[in-house]
Amino acid sequence: MEEIKNIPPKGNLKRVVIVGGGFAGLKIARKLDKKLFQVVLIDRFNYHQFQPLLYQVATAGLEPSSIVFPFRKVFQETISFHFRLCSAKRVVPEEHLLETDIGYIQYDYLVVATGCDTNFFGNDNVRENAMTLKSIPEALDIRNHILHSFERALTTHNDAEVDELLHFVIVGGGPTGVELAGALAEIRKYVVPKDYPELDNERMRVTLIDAGPKLLGSMSEESSRKALRFMKKLSVNVIVNCAVKGYDGSVVELGNGEKIKSVNVFWVAGIAANSLGGIQEKVKTFGGRIEVDSFNRINNHEDIFAIGDNCLMTEEKFPKGHPQLAQVAIQQAKLLALNLKKEIRGKKMKPFHYNDKGSMATIGRNLAVADLHFLHFGGLFAWLIWLFVHLMAIVGAKNRIIIFLNWMWHYFTLDQSLRLLISTKPENRK
Amino acid sequence: MEEIKNIPPKGNLKRVVIVGGGFAGLKIARKLDKKLFQVVLIDRFNYHQFQPLLYQVATAGLEPSSIVFPFRKVFQETISFHFRLCSAKRVVPEEHLLETDIGYIQYDYLVVATGCDTNFFGNDNVRENAMTLKSIPEALDIRNHILHSFERALTTHNDAEVDELLHFVIVGGGPTGVELAGALAEIRKYVVPKDYPELDNERMRVTLIDAGPKLLGSMSEESSRKALRFMKKLSVNVIVNCAVKGYDGSVVELGNGEKIKSVNVFWVAGIAANSLGGIQEKVKTFGGRIEVDSFNRINNHEDIFAIGDNCLMTEEKFPKGHPQLAQVAIQQAKLLALNLKKEIRGKKMKPFHYNDKGSMATIGRNLAVADLHFLHFGGLFAWLIWLFVHLMAIVGAKNRIIIFLNWMWHYFTLDQSLRLLISTKPENRK
Repeated sequence: MEEIKNIPPKGNLKRVVIVGGGFAGLKIARKLDKKLFQVVLIDRFNYHQFQPLLYQVATAGLEPSSIVFPFRKVFQETISFHFRLCSAKRVVPEEHLLETDIGYIQYDYLVVATGCDTNFFGNDNVRENAMTLKSIPEALDIRNHILHSFERALTTHNDAEVDELLHFVIVGGGPTGVELAGALAEIRKYVVPKDYPELDNERMRVTLIDAGPKLLGSMSEESSRKALRFMKKLSVNVIVNCAVKGYDGSVVELGNGEKIKSVNVFWVAGIAANSLGGIQEKVKTFGGRIEVDSFNRINNHEDIFAIGDNCLMTEEKFPKGHPQLAQVAIQQAKLLALNLKKEIRGKKMKPFHYNDKGSMATIGRNLAVADLHFLHFGGLFAWLIWLFVHLMAIVGAKNRIIIFLNWMWHYFTLDQSLRLLISTKPENRK
Repeated sequence: MEEIKNIPPKGNLKRVVIVGGGFAGLKIARKLDKKLFQVVLIDRFNYHQFQPLLYQVATAGLEPSSIVFPFRKVFQETISFHFRLCSAKRVVPEEHLLETDIGYIQYDYLVVATGCDTNFFGNDNVRENAMTLKSIPEALDIRNHILHSFERALTTHNDAEVDELLHFVIVGGGPTGVELAGALAEIRKYVVPKDYPELDNERMRVTLIDAGPKLLGSMSEESSRKALRFMKKLSVNVIVNCAVKGYDGSVVELGNGEKIKSVNVFWVAGIAANSLGGIQEKVKTFGGRIEVDSFNRINNHEDIFAIGDNCLMTEEKFPKGHPQLAQVAIQQAKLLALNLKKEIRGKKMKPFHYNDKGSMATIGRNLAVADLHFLHFGGLFAWLIWLFVHLMAIVGAKNRIIIFLNWMWHYFTLDQSLRLLISTKPENRK
């Protein structure tokens, strides 16, 4: 294997190689002092995706370009920064070397920010037949699937099939599941009557299933109750305390023996860390999360750090590790950027403490629930805060205004022209 | 085969079935008097695409959603109108029946507006290996291909391959070819230095090839000269009087024996009408165009009409038929909508005469050439007129302002975030 090409010698700088450009990877790539570090970011996509709004792309509410940022654009004119579109294969810690599908690269520090993918908990027939929502291509697949179901429901000659085509089942009652169910319910209410006057929109059903006892399990009782009330208001059929055992592409089997016929099953029930070869198996814990110390250093791996969803750090307040949220990833990234600077200057690193600013979930257009320290609230105000917090967290000052205006424009021109069945050639799929 | 479902009985109305929702099909669907006609529009896409700007989608200048209009949205709340997503298979004229892949439908009048697809003039290895630009999926494929070429040029270890990856060859010097070459030259000039500082943008080459003696063969001498001058200014390598004999995916063979190495070959050299089964072979002429009389009625086919690019009508000024332009399609559609009304009222139909308002081509951002009656001009003014004429021709009053603002917003926020490598699942490709 040859070395990755066109990356200039690092000179006096230390080279930091970052695997993955999600919230954590993007943040540390931006924050690292480029006068001290040469930064190499690799990702299998050429853009950062703003995951909290993926469900909007899936339900034709936003364009992909509204929620992603091409890395090359984010880092235009940034010195000592290099992006490479590739997949990491494995790390060779003793040689300070990362292997990728376009060659190897030597690092001084490696930051593993590979994030998470969907967890099927070993359920292979769900993996094969359900749709998932962890990337832009998956979101566009869901969008195409939903639109095809409507078109087919209108033209099929088999009446039983119409019900299967118009039943949308979301498995997983976390924020993504609640948001997706909410958006689909809004489509039933606002879009179907206008776009498909020949279809009876009452026949369309949205079912949200969770294995646990309540929606938004990680949030406050009040937010869970509010979410349930919003769901009921939108006529979403909510089933809790019920696991999904299998799905063959047409029938969902529930733990209680019940069966639901649907060709539209969206699995957002869990996540598992994306793994990287060469990391010792013994540091991997449940959900594939990599154990790190309070400086995000992987246990037993010198000069290799893991940040974000794919790592597991415990602290007094979080004995089972932090929640897998953007805020944790961003705070860890910021601190590690500072700590690496301390490290090369021979100073002592600062341990990480998560500053929980609260969590939020959006439910409908302009509707959200928020848990702040002493305050739980919902509605439009929560939604605006949710948007503001996330936007401020990720987007650079330079792009902020344009992107914000773009979003607002798209978001408030209701009923826009995004209900397009568009797909691209298989060979271009990466 | 069963009848297409959910289309209500036509009652006292006459049913007009329109095959294809391009400029011609969309226009007549809008113009037909819905108090007299029940209109059924079928198309294999669920949206109308504004073809003149496809090259902008291909070169990451515009989002697909900026240049397409979902039929269901265009016709929201339109009475006596039904859209069906399907492919027409064949017509059975003696039974007034159209067969599609979702069932058959009875018509009183059939309007064939199937438009054109790429013509490879029998050159199979070009068909297999070159990329084309007649639809949104094709435009997105080109976009992905271009971006992949840049990424690969940066990381390949084979130096000769870099030149192949950075050579962009456009075959066909008509408006689409000139526009595509211009946009690629602008990417070289403005985008590559910023996004790929590690690549030498001088190494990127753009070559435009035409078999005829000049660019924009159908336009005035002055416009051709201007186009050539613009191309030269943008450092596009223009080769005229030279046919392309073959392309194997890596080497373009020219008629003069020369060979060009490139993995990016875009074939925009000709179009052929999309055919529909059941139309007599004897009415089909060169390029698959269907002979029609001056009322757009297909010769020997009662109650079947063809309008737009796929038909061939001769008149005194146009002994070889009209140019295959949006303006012709739109004018034919408007007149046929009136003529069908005359027909059912027993009045005499009005023969078609093309009112040539002139033709235009865009070359760069804000650059165009225009041939009006006694006036040939170029530059920003021509570009604005081009935009205005096309917009006014297609978009309904209701959407016009929003779409126009959207366009302007996208067009003038230069260097926007559309350089995304996004693709969808093969099975969703229709």
